[in-house]
Amino acid sequence: MPAKPPSATDVSPLTLNRLCLYLRSLRRLEADGVSRISSQDLARRFNLSAAQIRKDLAQFGAFGIRGAGYDVSPLIERLDSILRLDRRHPVIVVGMGNLGSALACYLGFNHGSFEVVAGVDNDPGRVGREVGGFRIEHTDHLARVVRDSGAEIGVLAVPAKAAQQNYDLLVEAGIRGVLNFAPTRVQPVPEVPLKDVDLRIHLEELAYFLPPSDTDAGDAS
Amino acid sequence: MPAKPPSATDVSPLTLNRLCLYLRSLRRLEADGVSRISSQDLARRFNLSAAQIRKDLAQFGAFGIRGAGYDVSPLIERLDSILRLDRRHPVIVVGMGNLGSALACYLGFNHGSFEVVAGVDNDPGRVGREVGGFRIEHTDHLARVVRDSGAEIGVLAVPAKAAQQNYDLLVEAGIRGVLNFAPTRVQPVPEVPLKDVDLRIHLEELAYFLPPSDTDAGDAS
Repeated sequence: MPAKPPSATDVSPLTLNRLCLYLRSLRRLEADGVSRISSQDLARRFNLSAAQIRKDLAQFGAFGIRGAGYDVSPLIERLDSILRLDRRHPVIVVGMGNLGSALACYLGFNHGSFEVVAGVDNDPGRVGREVGGFRIEHTDHLARVVRDSGAEIGVLAVPAKAAQQNYDLLVEAGIRGVLNFAPTRVQPVPEVPLKDVDLRIHLEELAYFLPPSDTDAGDAS
Repeated sequence: MPAKPPSATDVSPLTLNRLCLYLRSLRRLEADGVSRISSQDLARRFNLSAAQIRKDLAQFGAFGIRGAGYDVSPLIERLDSILRLDRRHPVIVVGMGNLGSALACYLGFNHGSFEVVAGVDNDPGRVGREVGGFRIEHTDHLARVVRDSGAEIGVLAVPAKAAQQNYDLLVEAGIRGVLNFAPTRVQPVPEVPLKDVDLRIHLEELAYFLPPSDTDAGDAS
């Protein structure tokens, strides 16, 4: 039987990031009708490391069958359970400008265990507007909106200067975790984990793979 | 002297992802006035692995001084150069709805070597509107807009069903790489690298760290 999984604090962000990537890759395979895959094939198809896959999954008690590999659907279920994606996570968006409105309607935030159930803004011009499946409420009523909607994850889509204040309001309102899209550092309290999202990293990773342009011709070392 | 750095195809996406994380962490340290740091301290502060840091950086010819660590600013310059962030990367956004408009104004997309220089949409109601530092143009004129703006990276912020068509249009227009925010798979051509952005992964990573709620009480195994 699998060993007791490590507690959340035992797992590094990099390991967690890889588990999410494995899950994403396995979901693609499942959609394509693949029922079983070896760590080698998984690594080859998604440009990962086979040894790392085996090590990461074994850490959570998921072992492939030598020569046969992993059963795709059961492994997805196992990863869903490890990542706590087998339960519902209602989301509230704070700041319903362009970014907040886009996130409220974003498929990935309204799929599987996630659902954006509420949104607040402090601009009276936005309050009352319908976005996604809800009506925008005023930030003044955040505590009630969190309680009534059952939201447990808060998404900060406010300007940088308003991020800390709105994080603090979310904490007071009883939210359990916060995803921060504001381009600034927020000081979290230990009880309410905070994750910063920096979209620039995707541009940086892409920049590395751009084919050289004519103007790059002179830079061979 | 450092060995010749590996070519782009030698580097796995996971390694690249880590290099970008190191760069981010080092920039924070530089902003905080730290001029030198050991791999151990870097690992401790940002929850990374010291051995992995040394291995990754050595692969690119960046070696710390034993007992003293890495000089922060020169290492940032080195990583900037490896990641090709020491040159300008103009960006065009395709699809200027809520998400596209948010990305056009997003600080991380208008900082350092990146700048959103143009945006197109096929909705005549949006064409002509000022967003960020440019006026939205019609997608029909994509080739001219790419040429005139010098854009080299395209950002797809269109609905899923329009993603492939707009990727193809960007390729025809001579773009050199594409970042895809549309929640669908796009079939890329080898000459124009494509990177999918799935914002859901951030929610998944956060979900793992949420403190257990009262309703989780029964799920101990």
